[in-house]
This record gives sequence, C-alpha cells and structure tokens, in this order.
Amino acid sequence: MGGDAAPEVVIEGLAVFCAERQAVDFLLHGDQARLDPLLEKHPEVVARCNVHHSDIFVRMEDKPAQALRKARGSSMWNAVQCVKSGQAHAAVSAGNTGALMAISIMSLRKMPSVHRPGMTALWPTMKGTSVVLDVGANLEADATQLVTFAIMGEAYARAVTGRAHPTVGLLNIGTEDSKGHGHLREAAQMLARDELGLSYYGFVEGDDISAGTVDVVVTDGFSGNVALKTAEGTARLVGSYLKEAFSGDTISKAGAVLASTGLKRLREKMNPSSVNGGVLLGLNGVVVKSHGGTDATGYATAVQLAANLAKSSYKDEVAAGLSRIAELSSQPVEEAK
Amino acid sequence: MGGDAAPEVVIEGLAVFCAERQAVDFLLHGDQARLDPLLEKHPEVVARCNVHHSDIFVRMEDKPAQALRKARGSSMWNAVQCVKSGQAHAAVSAGNTGALMAISIMSLRKMPSVHRPGMTALWPTMKGTSVVLDVGANLEADATQLVTFAIMGEAYARAVTGRAHPTVGLLNIGTEDSKGHGHLREAAQMLARDELGLSYYGFVEGDDISAGTVDVVVTDGFSGNVALKTAEGTARLVGSYLKEAFSGDTISKAGAVLASTGLKRLREKMNPSSVNGGVLLGLNGVVVKSHGGTDATGYATAVQLAANLAKSSYKDEVAAGLSRIAELSSQPVEEAK
Repeated sequence: MGGDAAPEVVIEGLAVFCAERQAVDFLLHGDQARLDPLLEKHPEVVARCNVHHSDIFVRMEDKPAQALRKARGSSMWNAVQCVKSGQAHAAVSAGNTGALMAISIMSLRKMPSVHRPGMTALWPTMKGTSVVLDVGANLEADATQLVTFAIMGEAYARAVTGRAHPTVGLLNIGTEDSKGHGHLREAAQMLARDELGLSYYGFVEGDDISAGTVDVVVTDGFSGNVALKTAEGTARLVGSYLKEAFSGDTISKAGAVLASTGLKRLREKMNPSSVNGGVLLGLNGVVVKSHGGTDATGYATAVQLAANLAKSSYKDEVAAGLSRIAELSSQPVEEAK
Repeated sequence: MGGDAAPEVVIEGLAVFCAERQAVDFLLHGDQARLDPLLEKHPEVVARCNVHHSDIFVRMEDKPAQALRKARGSSMWNAVQCVKSGQAHAAVSAGNTGALMAISIMSLRKMPSVHRPGMTALWPTMKGTSVVLDVGANLEADATQLVTFAIMGEAYARAVTGRAHPTVGLLNIGTEDSKGHGHLREAAQMLARDELGLSYYGFVEGDDISAGTVDVVVTDGFSGNVALKTAEGTARLVGSYLKEAFSGDTISKAGAVLASTGLKRLREKMNPSSVNGGVLLGLNGVVVKSHGGTDATGYATAVQLAANLAKSSYKDEVAAGLSRIAELSSQPVEEAK
C-alpha cells in the first residue's frame, strides 16, 4: 500500500507484473472496501492475491515517531510483520520512507554486526545499472560502516544485476590515495585486503557514478542522498531543455514527430520507473521502498526487485562477508595495498 | 596559460572575448616563442595584450606541494603576482587547480576573518544560473565557515548574475528544520538572523540546485564536489542517450536533421562552456579557474567572469558581511527564527 496514487497504482503495478512474470503470490494489505472494486478489473491479480484488510494507514506526512505510535495494525506494519513471521518473503511499499524504515528496523531487527542499515538506489549508467548506497538512511558513516555497506552492496548487486563479481568503489572528491576524509582512506585500506574477497576498484568521483565505472558505489547517507537528488534534478533540467528544443519552430516540431521512436526510447531510458526500488540493506528480511510518485511500471519494477532479492542468497553472502570484517578487525594490518 | 589545449585555446578564447567586448586589456603569461605565432593570427588580441615571457610551467599532473616548490617564475605564479601588485585586476588560468589555489592563497592571502576560502561553480538551472560553493576547496565546513561561504557567495552572485538580492539556501538531505548535521542546523539559525542582511531561504536538497530554487547553494567542499561531478556525469549520460535516440533508424535520423535547430539550442544549453569559471572566494584578489578542457567560448566566459568580478564591489560587500558575522558571534542568540 501507500504512495501518492495508492491504492490504484499498486493494483495496476501488480497487473503489469503478473502479465510478465509467474510464480509470485501476493498478500495485499489495505482497505478491502477500496481494493475490491480495483481488483475486479484484474482477475489475473486476484488469482494470485490474498487481501489482508486494514483501515489504519501511515500517512505520507507522518514523522517516523508519529507513525510508529499508530503503526501497529496499519497496512504498512502488517506487511512488515508478514515478512517477520515468514508468511511473506519480502514487503514492498510506496508509502512514507521514514516510517517504513522505522517499522522495518524495529520489527525485523538488524543482522548481527550491522550497526547501521544502508538504503540503496539503482542508478542508470553508460554500462547498465549500478547500485549506490547509502542514499540517506544515515547522515554519517565511519570506516567500518563503509566497509559494511560495501559488503552488503556487493551481495545486493549480484542478486539484482546478475553480475557474478560486482566491482566496488568508494565515493571521494579525487582518485589519489591521499584524497578525502581520514575515514575514507581507512575504509579504502580495509576494502583492498584480499581477505574480504571484494573486487575493490578504488576511489571514484561523482561523474563515475553515471559513467558506470564500478557496479557498487559506497558512500555515507548525506553524500549519497545529495548525489541521487542532484542527478534527478539534472535529468529533469535536461528534460526541460529537450522539450524546449522541440517546441520552438514548426520544423523542429516536425523533426520531433519524425524522431518520435528515438525520443520514445530516450524517455524510456530517462524514466525513473525503470530503476524504481530502494532497499534497506542489513535487516533480517527484505523490504523494498518504491518511489511514492511512481507509476504502474515502476511499481512492477520494485516488486520484481523484491522477488529477485528474496530468491537470492544475498543474506547468506552478507552474513559471510560481515564475519570476514570481524576477522579483519581482530588481525593487524600487515600491508596496505 | 595552462589547460589541456594551452596555449591555443587561451588565444582563441581572448579572440572570442575581444570580438564581443571592449575595455579589457590583457597581460599574457607564457612562452613568447609559442605565443607569437598564435597571436599573429589575431591582431585584435595583440592590440590589447602584453606578453610576459616565462618558460617555467606548472604541469597539470603536479601536486600542489611540487608546484609550489617550482612555482616562482612560472607563468601561473607571475599571473597571480600581477594581481597582488595591482598590475592586473584579475587572473584567469585553465591550469592545475590545486597549484592555482595554493599559489593564490600563498600570494594573495585570505581576507580578514576568512578561515577557509571557498571554490564556486556556476550552475545552469530552470531559472537561469545559480552559484554553488564550496565545490572542493575544503573537505569540511563548520557552521561559521558555512555562513562565511553564504556571505561570499551572495556577494559573488550579485556581481556575476546581476540579481540585486540573491537568495541563499543550505544544502541538506531534507528541508525540515530538524534535518541534517548539527553544524548545518547551527548555520541555518545564524543565516536566518536579520542582522546578516541575507535573503535566506532555508534548507534545499540536491534536486533544488538544477531547479534554481535559490540563487546561492551553500555546502561543504565534499558534498559540493560530489554534487557538481554527479551533475556533469548525469548530463553526459543523458547526452549519450540522446545521441543513441537519433541514430537508430533512418526516420529518427531524418527527424534529427529536421530538428537540428532545436538540437543545436539544446547542445548550447548543455555545453559547460556557458558556465565555465570557478572562483576561489575569500582572497585579496580575483583569481578565476577555467576548466582545463574548455574550448575558446568557455575561456572567454571565464575571462568575462573575471572582468565582471573585478569591476564589482563584491570585495567590499564581503568585508562588510564578514564583519556582521563577527558582531553576531559576540551577541547572544535571542531568538531562533
């Protein structure tokens, strides 16, 4: 449930998903009276769906603390509880991000040796799709937290992009070893150690994200959130330039008509719904946050992400990776690579 | 001098500048033997130009410390010295950024009560052009440094964008008062005080930069550099999508030909040379850093920026603003707005 256009977009999204994919069933949490008329139009969704009625809702404008107070019994709360109890393999919500994080952390708890969960974003690049984390779950991250993000992000990238050995980079403002905050340099030394088993690339800069220089870009939540929103704003600006370019004179307009196939492809590539879905990594359970303003295709993408992640071995891989950090910390650093 | 295509692009840039603007003369620092043949083609530049010969150069790959050791007598050094001595009103270089900053700080010194100079970027937005600082001169900034950046950035925006009362925002990962690092909230309280005389807007997020929500976006050098390079990378990615969109089928290609006027306008808007030129604010003298890879138009833009800034009263305004911070700090905060 949830999101700016709920519950319509959720049902439409499930319909898109069901048309393309088999073998996933849904528990739908929300107001039965509102859901039933929407479901009537989509028998293919009804066939794979049980509705869990709830008439309590976390609103988009609720603060996490407010949301937590009234959360129990809300559709968001119930969805996360089903993951906790094992009734569901993953939860998807387009609702209030802060509330979803607070409820998920409280109910599912952090994995052993994860101090801070990290929020991921999928990022379209010159080479395909990369993972960026943390994009805003935490303001800061020390060296060990950055290494934790790297391990979780690498396992996540393997689960959702299908690459066997995703490469990992640390976001910095220069690529030389001497650049950046002390904790970044410390994290870089840890990430380079063979014992962690990562394909660590080194420092990357802001323009490397869209270039696709690495598969996983690791950073603190402040910088990650600034990067993500700056990229969204830039894409929107270029989009407005583009619109203007094709609405000037009649000949330009005619060109736009002729080039409509190309422009459609461009719009598809720039459509954020193709990369919709953020995951709070480091919890005992899969919870996917869909963008609140997404469309049906975007919602289907988020559901797909949840299904891929739930089926993958990413939790075991993360657990194994985290135990290697613990070993690292107990050994002296012999040699910085 | 300096930059990836020096000295050719510098001379071409001056030619572009001279064709459009009067009343600026140039001291050209570099190797006379290399400059003379280039100048021969541009009598309009020669008429407004004195060459100061130097055959020592700071290379693009020199570290600031290396550069400083051999700097004395280099073309970059000489250009900055001319600003110091008053022979020039401003210096422009497309050379090594770190070296230019180190030489400028050492030679020109910081203005009274500036602890850290801040590097600016001009940013194309939905509404025109905004100023973002710091984009990488410092890794961190405490509350007072952020307020200093705000005062310098506001005076700078007035000088270069012509807006009488530029609005100022603080970059954060949410817009509520409670969001972000403690030093951001502290800076926000100071910026809101009437005594500073700023049009303070409040917190802004990454997507507000390109939206043009405020005229001046204030942040620390790490986040500012991440934002700037992420935006460059995103624009490059969208550019590659665009190229692909128009090179698919024959009809799309024909459309691109018809729409060439619109596409040309789009390319002009996306061309970074229209916003070329970063300034290290807070020094006793104007030094403009042109992008190393810029073209002649971009170099002319940077020269224009230097001329505008040298003619403006921005230094006096900054001095007055900084003295107001000092007063603020000596008064108790009566009320947070």
